[in-house]
This record gives sequence, structure tokens and C-alpha cells, in this order.
Amino acid sequence: MLSPVRAGTPVEAATGDRAWLQAMLDAEAALARAQASLGTVPKEAAETITRAADAGRLDLRALALAARETANPVVGLVKAFTAVVAEQDAHAAEYVHRGSTSQDVLDTGTMLVAHRVLGIVRADLARSARALAELAARHRDTPAVGRTLALHAVPTTFGLRAAGWRQLVLDAEARLARVHEGGLPVSLGGAAGTLAGYLEYAAVGDDGRRPDPGDYLDRLADAYAAETGLARPVLPWHALRTPVADLAAALAFTAGALGKIAVDVQSLVRTEVGEVAEPGPDGRGSSSAMPHKRNPVLATLLRSAALQVPALAAALTQCLVSEDERSAGAWHAEWQPLRECLRLAGGAAHTAVELTEGLQVRPGRMRDNLALTGSQIVSERLAARLAPLLGKAAARELTTEAARVTGSTGRPLAEVLAGLPGLPPAAVGELAGLCDPAGYTGAAAALVDRALRH
Amino acid sequence: MLSPVRAGTPVEAATGDRAWLQAMLDAEAALARAQASLGTVPKEAAETITRAADAGRLDLRALALAARETANPVVGLVKAFTAVVAEQDAHAAEYVHRGSTSQDVLDTGTMLVAHRVLGIVRADLARSARALAELAARHRDTPAVGRTLALHAVPTTFGLRAAGWRQLVLDAEARLARVHEGGLPVSLGGAAGTLAGYLEYAAVGDDGRRPDPGDYLDRLADAYAAETGLARPVLPWHALRTPVADLAAALAFTAGALGKIAVDVQSLVRTEVGEVAEPGPDGRGSSSAMPHKRNPVLATLLRSAALQVPALAAALTQCLVSEDERSAGAWHAEWQPLRECLRLAGGAAHTAVELTEGLQVRPGRMRDNLALTGSQIVSERLAARLAPLLGKAAARELTTEAARVTGSTGRPLAEVLAGLPGLPPAAVGELAGLCDPAGYTGAAAALVDRALRH
Amino acid sequence: MLSPVRAGTPVEAATGDRAWLQAMLDAEAALARAQASLGTVPKEAAETITRAADAGRLDLRALALAARETANPVVGLVKAFTAVVAEQDAHAAEYVHRGSTSQDVLDTGTMLVAHRVLGIVRADLARSARALAELAARHRDTPAVGRTLALHAVPTTFGLRAAGWRQLVLDAEARLARVHEGGLPVSLGGAAGTLAGYLEYAAVGDDGRRPDPGDYLDRLADAYAAETGLARPVLPWHALRTPVADLAAALAFTAGALGKIAVDVQSLVRTEVGEVAEPGPDGRGSSSAMPHKRNPVLATLLRSAALQVPALAAALTQCLVSEDERSAGAWHAEWQPLRECLRLAGGAAHTAVELTEGLQVRPGRMRDNLALTGSQIVSERLAARLAPLLGKAAARELTTEAARVTGSTGRPLAEVLAGLPGLPPAAVGELAGLCDPAGYTGAAAALVDRALRH
Amino acid sequence: MLSPVRAGTPVEAATGDRAWLQAMLDAEAALARAQASLGTVPKEAAETITRAADAGRLDLRALALAARETANPVVGLVKAFTAVVAEQDAHAAEYVHRGSTSQDVLDTGTMLVAHRVLGIVRADLARSARALAELAARHRDTPAVGRTLALHAVPTTFGLRAAGWRQLVLDAEARLARVHEGGLPVSLGGAAGTLAGYLEYAAVGDDGRRPDPGDYLDRLADAYAAETGLARPVLPWHALRTPVADLAAALAFTAGALGKIAVDVQSLVRTEVGEVAEPGPDGRGSSSAMPHKRNPVLATLLRSAALQVPALAAALTQCLVSEDERSAGAWHAEWQPLRECLRLAGGAAHTAVELTEGLQVRPGRMRDNLALTGSQIVSERLAARLAPLLGKAAARELTTEAARVTGSTGRPLAEVLAGLPGLPPAAVGELAGLCDPAGYTGAAAALVDRALRH
Repeated sequence: MLSPVRAGTPVEAATGDRAWLQAMLDAEAALARAQASLGTVPKEAAETITRAADAGRLDLRALALAARETANPVVGLVKAFTAVVAEQDAHAAEYVHRGSTSQDVLDTGTMLVAHRVLGIVRADLARSARALAELAARHRDTPAVGRTLALHAVPTTFGLRAAGWRQLVLDAEARLARVHEGGLPVSLGGAAGTLAGYLEYAAVGDDGRRPDPGDYLDRLADAYAAETGLARPVLPWHALRTPVADLAAALAFTAGALGKIAVDVQSLVRTEVGEVAEPGPDGRGSSSAMPHKRNPVLATLLRSAALQVPALAAALTQCLVSEDERSAGAWHAEWQPLRECLRLAGGAAHTAVELTEGLQVRPGRMRDNLALTGSQIVSERLAARLAPLLGKAAARELTTEAARVTGSTGRPLAEVLAGLPGLPPAAVGELAGLCDPAGYTGAAAALVDRALRH
Repeated sequence: MLSPVRAGTPVEAATGDRAWLQAMLDAEAALARAQASLGTVPKEAAETITRAADAGRLDLRALALAARETANPVVGLVKAFTAVVAEQDAHAAEYVHRGSTSQDVLDTGTMLVAHRVLGIVRADLARSARALAELAARHRDTPAVGRTLALHAVPTTFGLRAAGWRQLVLDAEARLARVHEGGLPVSLGGAAGTLAGYLEYAAVGDDGRRPDPGDYLDRLADAYAAETGLARPVLPWHALRTPVADLAAALAFTAGALGKIAVDVQSLVRTEVGEVAEPGPDGRGSSSAMPHKRNPVLATLLRSAALQVPALAAALTQCLVSEDERSAGAWHAEWQPLRECLRLAGGAAHTAVELTEGLQVRPGRMRDNLALTGSQIVSERLAARLAPLLGKAAARELTTEAARVTGSTGRPLAEVLAGLPGLPPAAVGELAGLCDPAGYTGAAAALVDRALRH
Repeated sequence: MLSPVRAGTPVEAATGDRAWLQAMLDAEAALARAQASLGTVPKEAAETITRAADAGRLDLRALALAARETANPVVGLVKAFTAVVAEQDAHAAEYVHRGSTSQDVLDTGTMLVAHRVLGIVRADLARSARALAELAARHRDTPAVGRTLALHAVPTTFGLRAAGWRQLVLDAEARLARVHEGGLPVSLGGAAGTLAGYLEYAAVGDDGRRPDPGDYLDRLADAYAAETGLARPVLPWHALRTPVADLAAALAFTAGALGKIAVDVQSLVRTEVGEVAEPGPDGRGSSSAMPHKRNPVLATLLRSAALQVPALAAALTQCLVSEDERSAGAWHAEWQPLRECLRLAGGAAHTAVELTEGLQVRPGRMRDNLALTGSQIVSERLAARLAPLLGKAAARELTTEAARVTGSTGRPLAEVLAGLPGLPPAAVGELAGLCDPAGYTGAAAALVDRALRH
Repeated sequence: MLSPVRAGTPVEAATGDRAWLQAMLDAEAALARAQASLGTVPKEAAETITRAADAGRLDLRALALAARETANPVVGLVKAFTAVVAEQDAHAAEYVHRGSTSQDVLDTGTMLVAHRVLGIVRADLARSARALAELAARHRDTPAVGRTLALHAVPTTFGLRAAGWRQLVLDAEARLARVHEGGLPVSLGGAAGTLAGYLEYAAVGDDGRRPDPGDYLDRLADAYAAETGLARPVLPWHALRTPVADLAAALAFTAGALGKIAVDVQSLVRTEVGEVAEPGPDGRGSSSAMPHKRNPVLATLLRSAALQVPALAAALTQCLVSEDERSAGAWHAEWQPLRECLRLAGGAAHTAVELTEGLQVRPGRMRDNLALTGSQIVSERLAARLAPLLGKAAARELTTEAARVTGSTGRPLAEVLAGLPGLPPAAVGELAGLCDPAGYTGAAAALVDRALRH
């Protein structure tokens, strides 16, 4: 209720307690199947375990409460899940979580959740990128005010602005893709990252012959990765938290990139500016007090996410500093902030689709705003044209003075300039033609073309 | 499930969606009663509204989803709550949310939640402070290793350490008290902080005479504060977010203070150190892999909170930068992080009670550890005693060399020193007596006394 | 060069390496004098030490480089300072840093720096508060657009906005005052917080009689506090970092509060809005490219500080989690961020004086903007007036529809409403009178009065 | 003086005000040369500008102070630099900063600084990786205690721990490489990102024919990139801050990765543990109070950096949310934190070389510590061996009970187990052999092999 940016969006379900529990059960089942493929767990046991791995059979609340006793939910989960399996087949229950450790299960489950969420988020970003490409193409040549430090600067085109938004969305997508495709590994280390438990059970489970550790490790890790669809890590990463830090950075980037679009929309939607409007189904954006308002709620939601994720990501990056083979706290501090990052970035990506696909653009208001300053918006151009005639410094001084007069009197800049002493007569005639803002959009259109080819 | 530090603790229920919804309904009801006390809402309507203000009658999930349409949950809540009131009395429904705005309701509700949570947290901190006072008194003179930069430094007493922990807990309590007692105001501003809507309804609701704005404002704010038990602010604070920033700072301090206790306990609980142990009911701290372990789970949970709250608090402090009369995003970014701060600090305070009341202290291991370095731990003392005889620099040099020999050979420092050239014969006899670590605890006991008087 | 918000401001000099070094020397000298007042250091030695405590005599760069060898600058400082004193009087040099530890000197020095800086910052905030009080009083009744979620909401007055800014400045001042007056303690703990070194030297320095630890501690701490002008802490705080966390929180609040003023100014200074302008001496705010621009540089600098300090403060709060009697890293991580917080908040306070004292207010533009929406800005009022006639829901629906028509056609809201079916003839006449935005500022003026009394 | 982690290291000089100023002058000169290569600036002018681009000729302090007037240092720099060029050749001075804008110069200069720093940092990381590879290989089979949640867990090897450290260093290097090679673009946008000024001067500078915008843009951007050695961006990035966010994330990762090594070293260096020691030249790590100490100063410095950079990086990520074509504050808030990130990560990388190349490893103490718990450290193994005989649950229960007895009595685990009822006689004989910790390092050695191949 307090995080509307993600309420009811697909990532919400994909990151809930139930989804996380299911992912951990999926990890347990995949582990059993991987061990079965190596012959150290009976195939039937692995099948029974897989069939039983259904979050619906466990008491979520009881597990959450039990997690306080052991500082993680897996100890209780293994106990409860073993009982569920035992109901089917007592023998199979002997093979649950065999040789494993809490962190292998929780971390693998987390990676599964992240993998699923990134799939959703990337698809949403791709949709936004398409919508923005269309906006950029359509408004490639639509002149608009370029603003810097809150003031009119020089003209630009709305298409260039949209192309910039798209570029950020593509940048976000690329960063998520890097993590999604190869950066989300299974966790397979056993008690302290040596896989000793897995190997011990492999020895006792069979004829007592000890498997070659390196060979067994390779085969088990490959099988586990294959069963889960996750990557195989170079080393067990219980205390080497690269995957979490990478995920955090990519999600913070995503939220920040969408936040940029949001503040631009808010800047353009202001009553005095009015250059864009949010898409407005009935009731969207209404206020509890003011009947006339149609608030830019989508941009507001995006910005609310952008203000949260970087701080959460910093907390996660901090957790790289994990002492020993498993930290007493730094690991535990990751879970909830990572979930929040997934939710917020995911909710924001979903919200951005609505915003970018439905954004209403008002070229007329853009034109009106370009005219507001009596051509001061092209003062840079005038200074440039006068520079060869007067020298750069004198040209700038003259234009500054003329802009000052225009600012205080409202008289058009060309007219003011024409009346100033020091201007060569040759230049006077040319000035008016230079003052059309639509004629001073530089390489905006060419930049749009290049960006869209990208 | 992913935040065991607060799972099942009292603050969890106090910060859930239902609790927040109830607090917002309490705000609506209190507002109606306050208006009724000024004669601008019929008393019966206020009573009906109050009776209807029950979170159980509203569909929480539907409200959460609807919040996406308006970027806050209040627009939907007012609609749904008005319908609930109308079922009782259509006329009373006209007086729901009269003259008000979403932010007044959500912010007042948030302050009510915070007020309730701080009551719980402060009581828990008081319990921990008492437990730590007892530990400090009992171990006022228990000698123990003082450690700096991970190494044995000079002796201290366990009582002084416990007194320091208590001091931090008292500091946290004092900071929360400052916010709890006067720092949590009602929100009463109307659409843009002028109370115009309240005044307009006050005029139309009655005989059309316009109340004096200042007088009405004073009386309404006082009545609203009285009805809710919250403070009256100097000004409407829709975009002046002092209460939230203060709350964030106090909660971050609390989590950090408890985190300090946690890392000390972790330092002392290490297998090689063994000076304290966590209280251990059956199964507490067990591992999914290693039968022998009894993990310091309480300290782990405390530290996990301490690693999260400062980052969340930074996000909240950032929201001070709220543009205009209501920010399009900075306000919305506060809700969830503030809830997390309350939950984590509250869960940590609850966990700290268990830890401080049950901590097992092992003076024997402390004594053993004091003896580990062959008296190097009192090298500062020896340097001080030799300084008047040899000069400060020479004394230090001699002691450093002796400590080096002790470190590499294991021979007791007094013996090594006695054998070094340059030591006055008069000093040799005294040295052995100076080497008892228990005799070099300085003002530790006196500091405990002073701290406990505080 | 990269932090213009504080370049050349008084806090810059007060927080430089030289100032910090001087503060540490002041701490050494004050310690010697405090010990002399107790008779454990000769008065003449303390005087010699005090005279020699001049940062100009030490090689700053050499000390900075030497700090790498010991992870803090004090070990080298003590060595170099002892040599300086020895040049004056070899005997006095024996009494430098007697019984002390690096952290006592660095922390006390830091508190001295902070004490000086807070004095400067509070004076600047007081000036801003006065300037804002004047603005608030002068524009108590100047009608202006109230904006929420980027859109026109209802009217307010510029005075109320200025009063809100002032309130935040006062809140910041109050938070700094709380720290300044009693929250900045001397550090006096010796090697591990027991003062054992101080006591040992007190014994050896004299007739060998050991002073009573509690008595000596009380007298030394009081004398040290008196000599430095700092507070006396309850306990040595080497690893109890309340003072740093409090300072961080107050400085983050200050930067955030000033950042709120900045974003409001930026919102109002926009070319399309134009309701205020920054004070503009020659060249201020000029652009390297655009002659016409007069950028809101003061607000920009303020905002740049507000975006940095909360994150730095979070890093400092995190350092509450300091293990053992002195952390191996958490202490060291405080120094530079704390300095940055002092600089940025101090630079921002200085910049805010310029902004608030010189802000140019344009009531004419405010009036123009109030007229932009054809009275939609008073739609709340109209809905309230119609509610008793039509019922709240119907009134709102009617007003919403009318606002929609006004929005799309530009026809004044009163006229549109008058033409809609469903409006009682009695109401039609009244509508036009209700549509003057200047008549709907609610309790704004009364709120200004109350805030200024505060 | 307050940031010893980087004092005197190569990155300090590379990030100072002078270095930054030089980089900005390099950007101006490269721009002139790029324009000259397109024929829009005379070759001689570009040469004169290049020769004059020497930071030593400008008054650094004056520029820093002037930066307050315009909220950035470039306006003043252009003025001062133009004067320097004019001293050589007044005509050439006309071509300084031609068509450009402050942000193009400052951002390009920043990228140049970052490019140089990353070169240094990557080389240092490569050295650390080599040193760690050697440690890992040498101690591939050195048994050591694996620790989780502060307690002995199961055995590992020191080589596996070193291999993990190396992996993190390689991960950091890879992340920096990604940014270094292609992620640091020139900034080339002109006043508002359209290159209009560049194009206008290209037109006026020559025969008045307007170049084709797209063609000119392509050639100018390529030439500028070639002249600086930086990348060519897809679009001007004045308000699309991907490069800064990427840099921040990679530097935060680097600091965090090195921080992990630091806390491990601190854990192992503890007096009670003593498994490693820092390299110790004379005086390194000495304390101002305690002669015997040799503090782990390198690890302390590393950790101090790791505690700062993530927060600074969060502030930088937040700046992605930059409104309009240039933000009024978000851009300005980047400069100093980015510099600090470069300095801290760079100082940490430099410090890590000293630590990893000189780390002293003590296999004897590792063996001693493995023996501390009377074989409890292999309780997982015993439970695994007993599982097929007793069932998993019963085996675990029996081992837990035996470990409890060992813990409280100190009797070896094998002996205790042998005496417990319920153990099959067949198992008793095997137990003692299973209790050698050195025999239970799992796949540690094989993992080292695989990691080193990576």
C-alpha cells in the first residue's frame, strides 16, 4: 500500500514471500536432481523431492517466524520440507538438502528470483525503448526549448530529448542484460565453501569410494547450473558477493535512468510549461481535494523509485565487505534491500511503459514557449555571427547587453540589437532571419538519426 | 521471511498495511471530531464516522492497487470509506475528509504509526539498558582484554564495556524520546498548506459566515492534535519534512547503536576468544549443515539491521529536498523506507532485549586471554614507569624492543626486560609486580560507577 | 575547485588541513595545561607546550604522508611536535602527549574544529532566518500559485512560502545548537578508554603515590573540558560514536533544509514562471556559451550540497558500528566525510545568506500566473460551495467536468459552470466572485503571523 | 591529512586541482585541434592554444573562487585561458572554447582524469592479483579454519581463501576495464546538446556555407575522441549521466572488494587468532601509546575506503536524475564525490599491493586453531558418515549431543561419540580417522586450481 510504484505489477508477485520460498524449493529440487545425475542420490528420490517442492505445502508464516531462531529461513525450511517429502517417501527424505548449507539454498533461490524478475524488467524496458524510438522519430524536427539550470538556453527538438530518454533505457537494458546473461550463478559451496559435505555424502552414499574432488565438483556444478538455468561461478561466493553487487548496481542504474525521464516529464508538464501531458484514463491522476487536477502520477511513481534504489544499492554494495567464509550480518542485510531493489526497479520499468507509450506531446505549446523570450534563446547564435565582425569578446558583450534590454523591456532581441551602436550595418539585415528559434536546432535531427540507428 | 530481525516482533504488526490503514482512518475520524468540536461538522456525523473507521471494513488489496492511479492510497481510501459511512448514514458521509487533502491523512496516519512504534521501541530500549546496567555493575571489576585495531591493547573491565553499550542504548532512547515527545505532529494543511478548504467548508457548513482564519486555524489544529495525541506543528509541513528527517535520524542512530553491541558480541564470541556466549534456548543458532554450531544469531540480526537503516535514513533525509507545496515524488519516496526504518529499528530493539538479558559472560576466558601475550598488554605501563628513569623516548624504545622479543619468543615481558641492558637495577624488582594485567585497569571501575549514576 | 559551494567561504579555512592540525595541537596543549592544573605536569612545561603548539612550525605534508604508516596522523604529529618542544626545552618535551593516545588527540581536535564551524554556520543561518522573516512579513498577503505534483493547486501567498523556508532554517539552527551546546565532548580515554596511561603517569610523575582513579578522572576531565571549551562526556567515546553521528545528522538536516529552498527557487525562477530571480551582481550566473543567461547559481550550489551531505552522513552513521575499544577502519572512515559534511553544510549556509538576503520577488508575475488557468486554481473552492447544494459527490463531478472544459477551451471556469445543467440558479451569481484567486488564500496570512511569532 | 589511504599515492596527484585543471585545458586544446582538423579553426591557432594549455600558467585559487560566481570553474577558466593565449597571439585567442559550453570542457576533463586514474588503479589491481595467485598456489593445501557467523565451521585451506580474494580483485579489474575501455566518452554537445554553437562557428568561421550537421558532427566527434583518446558517445550526455554512474559503480565495487580482503585480514590478525600478519617495515603500525603493538594499518586503510565509497557512489547514482538539458545542481553535485571515489579506490588499490605482496602467513597458527575445538570442526563430516547407519535425523541428533559434550568438557569428539549409546560398533573404529581436520578440506585444492586457471 505504501509502494504504489510496484503494487500489482508482475514483479510484485515474482518477489513475494511465496515466490522466494518456491525459488528456494526449486533450488533444493534442482540440487537433488543434479546429485541424482551424478549417481549420488537415487533418481526416484530426486523425483519425489522435485514433486514435493511446492511452496503451497509449507506454512510461510511459520517459516518466517522460525527464521529468527537461526537468523535465516532455510534451517526451518529444510526441516519442514523434509517432513513433506517424508510423507511421500521416508527414504527420499534422507536425500533432501544433502551435503548442503543454508546459504547455498537461499542464494540460489535469490538468483532464481532475480533471473525471473530481470526477464520481466528487460521486456518492459524494450517496450519503452520502442515507444521512445517512435516519439523520437515522430518529433525529430519538432522545435522545443532546451533548458539548462532551469532557464531557457538554446532551441533543441523534442525528438532529441526522446532519443536521449531512449538511450538511457537502452543503457539500463544493457546493464541488466550483462547481469541476466551469465551474472547470476548458482551457489554451491557447502558449509564453508569447500563442498566438503557434498563430497562426503557422495562417498558415503555409494560404495564408499571417494570421488575425485575436482571432477565431482565440476560435474556437480555443471549439473546444478543446468538444472536451474543459472550460471556456474568460478568459486563458491558465500563471502564473495559480486553477483549481488552487480545486480544492485544495474538496478540502481535502471531506477535512476527512468527517474531522469520522470523529472523531465515533470518539468514539461508544469502548468506554465504544458509541453507534454501524461496519458489519462478516467480518474488517473485525480486529487482528493482539487477537481481540476490531473497529476502526473506515472512520473511521480518513477521518481519515487529513483529516490530509493540508489540508497538501497549502496547498502548492498557495502555488504561486499563480508568477513570470513560467511558474514555474521552482512549476508543477512542483503535480502530485504535486494528484494526492494527488484521491486522498485521492476515497478518503475512497468510504469515507464505506460508513460512512454501514452505520453501526449504538444508541439504548439513548445512553439509558444520558444517565443517567450523575444529571441534571447538564440543569443548564442547572434554572438557567434557577430564574433568575426567584432571579435569574440565585443560580440559577447554586445549580445549580453541586448539580451538584458530584451529581458527588461520585452522588445525583440533583433530590434534591440539593430538599435545598439557598434553593430555593422551589414549585420543588421541578417539578424532577423537568425532569430527564428526553429532555425537554430543545430545537429538535433542528425543526432536523432544516429541514436535511432544504435 | 527475508527480514528475520523483525519477523513476528510487535513492531511488525504495528507497521503492517492494516495498521497503516487503521491509522489513516483514525486520522479521518479525529479530523471529523475536531471539526465537530468547532461546530462545523455535526456531532452525530463525527460519531458515525468514528464508528465506521475500522480497517477491517475496507479491502486493503484493492486500495493498494488503486493507489497506482493517483500515486497515493488516500484518494481510493476516501472513496471507499465514504461508501462505508454512507451505508450507515448518507448524511454523515458528506462530512468525510471535509476540506482535507490526501497528504493530511497519510502524514497524520504515518505519525500515528510512528508514535505507536516509538512507544514499543523505547520500552524495549529501557529493558536493555536495565539489563546492561546489571551486567556493568556485576562485572565492574572483571578484568578483560581491551582491543584496538583488532589487537590486544591494554586491560579494561567487562563492566566498562557493558557500561558503554548501555550508554549507547540510553543515547538512542534519548534521541527517540525527543522525537516521540513533541516531534510527531498532525498534518493539517489542506490542498496546498493554507487550510483554505477547511475554512471554506467551515463557512459553507454553517450560516455562511466566514470564520476568522487565524482563530479557526488555532482551534482546529489544537483540537486535531488533542484528538490524535500528536503535536501541533508551527506550519503545515507538506513540503517541510522535518518530522520525517528527525525520525529517520533517530532510528538510524538506534540501529547503529545496537549494531555496535552486536559487533562487540561477535568479536567476543569468536571460537578463539570465547569471552561471551549468546543465550541459547533449544535449537537457537543451529546450522543446517554443522551440528556443533551455536551461531550468534541475535547479534547477527542486530548487525543486519544496522547495515540497512543508515542507508534508508539517507534516502529519507534526501527527501527534505521537496519542491513546491507538495513534491511529485519526494513525498512518495518516503513511505516505504520510513516503514522499513521503523521495522528494522524496532525489530533490533526487540532482539537486543533477548541478547542483553541473556548474555553469558565468561570471566575465566577473559583471564586466559589477558595472559596470552606474556604481559605485552601492559607494555604501555612499563614504558610509563621507565620514562622518568630513562626519558620517554628511551623508555619507549626499550619497551618496544622487549615486546618484540616477547612476541617472537614467548618469554614473559618482565623477564625479557630484566635481561636487557640499560634497565636500572632499581626498576628490575618492580617490574614483575607491574605486569599483572588485573592491576592495570585504570579508572575502569570508577567510570562504570559514573556511567551508572547517569 | 570542484566544490564551489564552499570555495573561499569561512568554513573552508576552518576545515583545512592547517586548521585541523592546529586543533590537534590545541588539544595537546590543553591536555598539558589540564594535567598541570592537577599537578602532574610542571606548569612551565605546560606553558612551553602551549607556546609551541603552532601549526606553522610543523610540516603538514610530511605529517600527511607519515599518517599512512600508522593509519592516523597523530603518531607522526606527536613525534614532530615533541621535537619542536624539545628545541625550546628538552624537559618540557617529556610531558607532551603524556599518558595519551592518538584517538584522544584526533577526536578532541575534530570536536574543536566542529565547534568553530558550527559557530560560523549558526550565525549564517540566523542571518538567513532574519532575511526570510522580512520576506515573509513583506509578502504576507502577496497571492501566488500554490503548486503540488508540478501543477497549479490552489492559491497561497509568497509570504507563507518564505515563512516555511524560514521555519526549516530555524529547525536546522535548533538541531545544530543542540549539538553545539553540549554535544561536542573532549576525548579522554587513553589507550583503550580506561585512562590507565594518564593515571600511571600521574603516579610516576610525582611522589609515586597513586591518585584515586575516580577523583583524578573527574578532575582531569573537568579541567580538559574547561581548557578546550568542549563538553565532558559520560564515558570515553573511542568506540561510542554518538557525537559524530549527531553531528552528521544535524549537518545533513541543514543541507537538506537549504536544498528545499533551492529547489523552490529553481521552480520559481524558470523562464516560464519567473516569479523570483536571484540577486545578480555583475557577471554572476553568466554562462560560457549563452550571453542572455543569468543562471540561478546560488540555488544550484545549495542543491549540489543537499545532494551530497545525506549520503556522507549515512557513511558516518554507519560508523557507529565500531567494533572493540577502537575500530580498525570505522574510526578512520569518519574523518574525511565529516570534514566534507562540515564544508558543504557550512558553504551552503554561507550561500543561503546571499540568496535569502538578495532574492528578487516579482508579485506581478505571481498574479499573471494565478490567472493562467481560467480559475481552475479555485476549483476546490467551487466544489466546496456547491457541495451543500448538490451533495459532495455531485458537486465534485460537476466541477471536474467544468475544469475539463476550461482546460481544453480556455473559457473561464465560472462561465463554463454557469452554462452547465444541474447548477442551481442561486449559485450562478455567486460563482464569479468566488473565482478571484486572491480571495482564496485561506489562513496563509494567519499562518505567517504565527510562524513569525515563533 | 585526514585520508591516509590515499595520501601520497599516485592517484592523489592525478586527482588534484592542478591535474583537473590540466585535464580541462587538455580538453580545450584537443577541441581546437579537432576543429582545426576540420578546417574550422586555423591550424596555427590550434597549435598556439595547445602550447598555451598549461595549468602552471593559471591561478588555481582564483579560478576556484571565481567558480562560485557561475557555479562552475569553466567560465573563469575560459576567460583566464583566453588571456594567456592572447598574450601569445590575439588572433588565436578568438578560437578558444569556440562554440563550446562549460559542461563539454568540465566533463571531458573529468573523463580524462578518470582515464588516467583507471590506468593506475588497474595496474595496481593486476599486481595484487598476481601476489594473491602466488599465495593461493603456495597455500593450496595449507589447512585452516573456515569460519561462518564468527565461529569455527569446517576446515578449508588458506589457498582457497587467497584464491577468493584474487577472484574479487579480478572482478574489480574487469568492471573497471569495462569502463576504461570505451565507457569514458568525450563531452561534445554545446549549450544544450545540439552542437548548434559548434555548427554556427563552423559556418561563420569559413565562407559562410553551412556544413551538413550530421556530417560535421560525425567528423568533429571522431576527431575530438581521437585527440583525447576517449570514446565517442552515442549522444551528448550533459543530462544522460551513464558514464558517471558506471564509473561510480565500478569504483564502489573495487573499494568493497578490497574491503573484503581487509576484514578477512583483520579477522585473521587478531591476537587470539594470529594466522597472518601485515608486512612490517620499521615503525609501520606503531601506536602512540602502546609499544608492543604492530597495528594492521594496511587493512585498516582499506576498510576505511570501503566504508566511504559506496555512499559516495550512491550520491553519484542519484545524479542520474538530472532534469532538463543540464541540471541545476545534480551535475554540480557529482564533481567532488567522483573525485573522492577515484582517490579512495585508487588509494585502496595502491595499499592493497603492499598488503598482498607482503602478507605473512603462519600455517602453524592455522594448525593450532584447527585443533582448538576437539574436532567439533568436523562434526558435519561425522554426521554425514553416520547418516546412512542411523538415518539423517538421528545422526545429526547424536552428533549435536556429542559436540555439546565436547564443548563443555573439552574431551575429543571421537572419544565422546564412541562412548555414546546408539553408535554402531562398526563406526567407532573409523571415527578417529575421520577427525583429522586436514583430511576434510573437500574440494578446496581443486577449487584453487580452477580459480587460478581463470
